[in-house]
Amino acid sequence: MGPELQAQIAELNIVCLAGGVGGAKLASGLAQIAPTQHLTIIVNTGDDFQLLGLTICPDMDTVTYTLGDVSNLQTGWGREGESWVTIEEVRRLGGPSWFSLGDLDLATHLVRSQFLAEGQTLTSATRHLCTQYGIKTQLLPMSDQAAPTMIVTKDDVLPFQTWFVKEGWQPAIRQVQLPQDVRATAQVIHALEKADIVIVAPSNPFVSIDPILNVYPIREMIMDLPRAVVAVSPIVGGKAIKGPAAKMMAEMGLPVSAAAVASYYGELIDGFICDQEDAHISQTIHCETLVCDTIMRNKGDRARLAEDVLGFALSVAD
Amino acid sequence: MGPELQAQIAELNIVCLAGGVGGAKLASGLAQIAPTQHLTIIVNTGDDFQLLGLTICPDMDTVTYTLGDVSNLQTGWGREGESWVTIEEVRRLGGPSWFSLGDLDLATHLVRSQFLAEGQTLTSATRHLCTQYGIKTQLLPMSDQAAPTMIVTKDDVLPFQTWFVKEGWQPAIRQVQLPQDVRATAQVIHALEKADIVIVAPSNPFVSIDPILNVYPIREMIMDLPRAVVAVSPIVGGKAIKGPAAKMMAEMGLPVSAAAVASYYGELIDGFICDQEDAHISQTIHCETLVCDTIMRNKGDRARLAEDVLGFALSVAD
Repeated sequence: MGPELQAQIAELNIVCLAGGVGGAKLASGLAQIAPTQHLTIIVNTGDDFQLLGLTICPDMDTVTYTLGDVSNLQTGWGREGESWVTIEEVRRLGGPSWFSLGDLDLATHLVRSQFLAEGQTLTSATRHLCTQYGIKTQLLPMSDQAAPTMIVTKDDVLPFQTWFVKEGWQPAIRQVQLPQDVRATAQVIHALEKADIVIVAPSNPFVSIDPILNVYPIREMIMDLPRAVVAVSPIVGGKAIKGPAAKMMAEMGLPVSAAAVASYYGELIDGFICDQEDAHISQTIHCETLVCDTIMRNKGDRARLAEDVLGFALSVAD
Repeated sequence: MGPELQAQIAELNIVCLAGGVGGAKLASGLAQIAPTQHLTIIVNTGDDFQLLGLTICPDMDTVTYTLGDVSNLQTGWGREGESWVTIEEVRRLGGPSWFSLGDLDLATHLVRSQFLAEGQTLTSATRHLCTQYGIKTQLLPMSDQAAPTMIVTKDDVLPFQTWFVKEGWQPAIRQVQLPQDVRATAQVIHALEKADIVIVAPSNPFVSIDPILNVYPIREMIMDLPRAVVAVSPIVGGKAIKGPAAKMMAEMGLPVSAAAVASYYGELIDGFICDQEDAHISQTIHCETLVCDTIMRNKGDRARLAEDVLGFALSVAD
């Protein structure tokens, strides 16, 4: 990174909206290059659910494990070096075992559930866990209220993780249902008030980013406040990098393309970053567009993309 | 066992009141010699507590693991062949780790907590777990309501497990506080209505048996209904076989002896079983007394004591 860009970044207050894997990787890249005290990751909690007495926050855990450098890079979820003694016994005892909780991962949910049972907020429990995982970047749940994302299929209305994991995201989606009257925390509002740049991570627009924007007044603040809002496409060459984004777009009657994602975000964003594979469609995008390599295979890729994104955001802001 | 006694036992409906280790061992002996459909173990739930989001039932678990033949015979609690990955990670993450939850043991609490979260009763969750552990004997929690036993010390009023495990039962006890207005389940009442013989296991009278008797209308039904009520002394030679019973008796100003236990049970019992080591004091006991070997070192000992207890109960009932 050039000294000029470095100096500019050092002055920025940056907020990143993140879901699971894609969000975690970009957050980790941002954490490598931006000053800790100026970076906040607002994480989707629409996937959170209760199982086996525990409160499980899949997106927050993915971001935490990635930033804490303990994530399983093979699976894209869970802890590295994981074992499965307890969940195998849960299965043997006839309990629900469709959500693969490893023995190390389980400790996170147990400690979180303990703090919540003591009356702490999810924000406070998250801060505690981040400290224990050695994470200095501020990770904030979008809300301390429950805000379950529901997936409407032909036959059912399913909580997100039931659809995503238990049903293997196979039932065709008709609609994503987001809850009414969920409020952002004071910490989220404070971070957005200060934000110069908001980055929408390459996460699923419908079930990772929309749930965050749906929390009042996050969308309103992002429309009004920052100098620039830029989004990174989760769709590359007409396919999702990971997960059901492409399948959902097709089922909801949208073109499966980076341009359609940009168009979906519409007036919210001032700039859009798509992969070089989609360079040919960059002219059709309604806002300023950066074409670069958006695939994050390793830590170096994450930092490089973070740098590209911030440099672009600064140019858009000017 | 002689054919005559065997025939008599086959006709009996037997209820055993049990706490943890001593209760579990005698219950296991009774399960070896009494017909499954005529035996009910009513288990103390005064020790139950919430930790890490989970509902933990220490006495019920000890009885379950003992009857399911998966208990750790060395420690007297928990599962055999246990590992500790999750609780070590909980400790590392700054969560409460004073209650040693093994990875296998944890599965029991997770499955129970799941069933409770689904709105099932503790009785129903217990039945499910017993089936999974291959237990045919009916194990019943004394109540489906929370009924926390509190320990009053000089400085504190502590939930039982906090005093027992976290404080290592060291703070001197001033009083055991039992909750008001706890009701027995329909299943407990049904078992007691049918009971010919009630056996009070060699469990702690103050924190294992009293909490059961305190549940309305268990004490009243036991006073009125069965042909005989017999108790096995948890005190042998002035010492507790295991746990804090002797220390508690001394701190509450009682003589530490089998005779004092018999006297404490008073009119509730028709017969008392003390160890041969206490043969010399058996004459001072207010009710009929059997002197025998009450120490259960192995499965054979458990069955032998169960046989002695039932034979004695039948003689008292006549």
